Amino acid sequence: MNANAHPTPEWQVAQWFNAIAPLTLASLHGRVVLLEAFQMLCPGCVAHALPQAQRVRQLFPEERLAVVGLHSVFEHHAAMTPVALHAFLHEYRLTFPVGVDRPSPDGPLPMTMQAYGMRGTPTLLLFDRAGRLRQHLFGQVEDLALGAHLAMLLAEA
Amino acid sequence: MNANAHPTPEWQVAQWFNAIAPLTLASLHGRVVLLEAFQMLCPGCVAHALPQAQRVRQLFPEERLAVVGLHSVFEHHAAMTPVALHAFLHEYRLTFPVGVDRPSPDGPLPMTMQAYGMRGTPTLLLFDRAGRLRQHLFGQVEDLALGAHLAMLLAEA
Amino acid sequence: MNANAHPTPEWQVAQWFNAIAPLTLASLHGRVVLLEAFQMLCPGCVAHALPQAQRVRQLFPEERLAVVGLHSVFEHHAAMTPVALHAFLHEYRLTFPVGVDRPSPDGPLPMTMQAYGMRGTPTLLLFDRAGRLRQHLFGQVEDLALGAHLAMLLAEA
Amino acid sequence: MNANAHPTPEWQVAQWFNAIAPLTLASLHGRVVLLEAFQMLCPGCVAHALPQAQRVRQLFPEERLAVVGLHSVFEHHAAMTPVALHAFLHEYRLTFPVGVDRPSPDGPLPMTMQAYGMRGTPTLLLFDRAGRLRQHLFGQVEDLALGAHLAMLLAEA
Repeated sequence: MNANAHPTPEWQVAQWFNAIAPLTLASLHGRVVLLEAFQMLCPGCVAHALPQAQRVRQLFPEERLAVVGLHSVFEHHAAMTPVALHAFLHEYRLTFPVGVDRPSPDGPLPMTMQAYGMRGTPTLLLFDRAGRLRQHLFGQVEDLALGAHLAMLLAEA
Repeated sequence: MNANAHPTPEWQVAQWFNAIAPLTLASLHGRVVLLEAFQMLCPGCVAHALPQAQRVRQLFPEERLAVVGLHSVFEHHAAMTPVALHAFLHEYRLTFPVGVDRPSPDGPLPMTMQAYGMRGTPTLLLFDRAGRLRQHLFGQVEDLALGAHLAMLLAEA
Repeated sequence: MNANAHPTPEWQVAQWFNAIAPLTLASLHGRVVLLEAFQMLCPGCVAHALPQAQRVRQLFPEERLAVVGLHSVFEHHAAMTPVALHAFLHEYRLTFPVGVDRPSPDGPLPMTMQAYGMRGTPTLLLFDRAGRLRQHLFGQVEDLALGAHLAMLLAEA
Repeated sequence: MNANAHPTPEWQVAQWFNAIAPLTLASLHGRVVLLEAFQMLCPGCVAHALPQAQRVRQLFPEERLAVVGLHSVFEHHAAMTPVALHAFLHEYRLTFPVGVDRPSPDGPLPMTMQAYGMRGTPTLLLFDRAGRLRQHLFGQVEDLALGAHLAMLLAEA
């Protein structure tokens, strides 16, 4: 795989939750990064992807792996507002940082979702320590496979 | 059990989804009624109570048993609006009628929730064919037990 | 349904576990009876049917409902011996009475399995208080449906 | 971790299933090895460890990772015979090689179980490509963690 083939535009985030300061991809260089793009009313995100991201957060050390959520709303915009997201994160006890993917002036797809060409939610992106995109996975991902992907990236020099 | 000991005030509903006309407890006399009071951001409701209500809807005949949802929001009111509920019902493919428990002018608890003395969500109420409250169950209910409760009420003359 | 249409031959049991004395269908008259026919190496029995029978045992009163297992071995006879069954019941913490369906001199199907025309395992038979066969269910049964079946039989005069 | 601190005695196997020829640890040098020690009547093995081993088999390439089962019977010996194991492997559709841990003349614990100081079943052993023992895990192991362990070993030069 030619890792350089994937462009890795900086995230466009309108607002952060569970974070003291804004997180940029650039600021996370040196750590492996798991980005979980989700919608709070997407059943597959709620049942599988977000609990999995939380399990990853608990299993791997924070100083080597960053887990970041991205609320990429592309439908039902009036329902999935930042106020609603705040309540959702509280009720589901999600503790990792979550950014709100910046709405686009041109259409329903938010800007980071567009920039990365995501097909829907959940989408899981894995970046290596140099900030290169190494995995782009749409839909449900097996824990065994995700654990392997993460360890491979963590094992890289 | 003295079934008459339980008062059964009429539901206070501000708005209906998945219903052609407003549903009242009185209008359902002659049928057993399962009322599932929930909040769309309550994890136990989403993971257990609502899928269970949907299973009940699929298993029992509609002409003998009514399944009704009640969105009884008592926290995070700005997040769980009717607009958000509409999107939620669509995404989770819930097809039974759902009413919005009427907000109270006096505090966070909506009016039906107050009138029935519910302790939280999910709360499952079962009414017999004469409209009497026969079960008031808070929290997760086993399918085996719920199937038995329903059949007992359906078997009554 | 004409309940009398189903013949209800007495069980043929070679040996009992978890029982002080042999149990006959006749001796259980007056109680509803759930008979779970299984094989200890049948994955669907181990994952679904037997845990379900155990849940029924815990939920319903013993004096009104009898839960009985029947080890109906029709394949791998050398593997599923009474000695092996004894260890299985111990390891899986199954506490209801279990009979060994009597092997037939004429072929692989044991005698009760033959007499009731069972198609395989798991098979769940429900008898009413008069000892009549009321349900004959092959394969996985939903808890909601089973709870309803049991309550209907328990509610009969 | 000083990998050399763990002795790695050769397995003692009385009989193989799903294998054309006997498998030794020595013969697998060059591949990472997952050894799953189990008993066919151990509920945790049946519900978790063996399905997990089968998932590993499906996910990782056979030429780089060997998945091997070891039937380490330390109780109920009369129930868990090789004949019973053969039926069990067939019914549960387990396709990776499984050896029968050689019974000891001196007591109930079989010889490989003794040699590795296993505390019970399931026990999962992971060996690196040089045949060194790198993980010894008793009980239920999370898929995320196992995926990571395997990838780390596979990533080693």
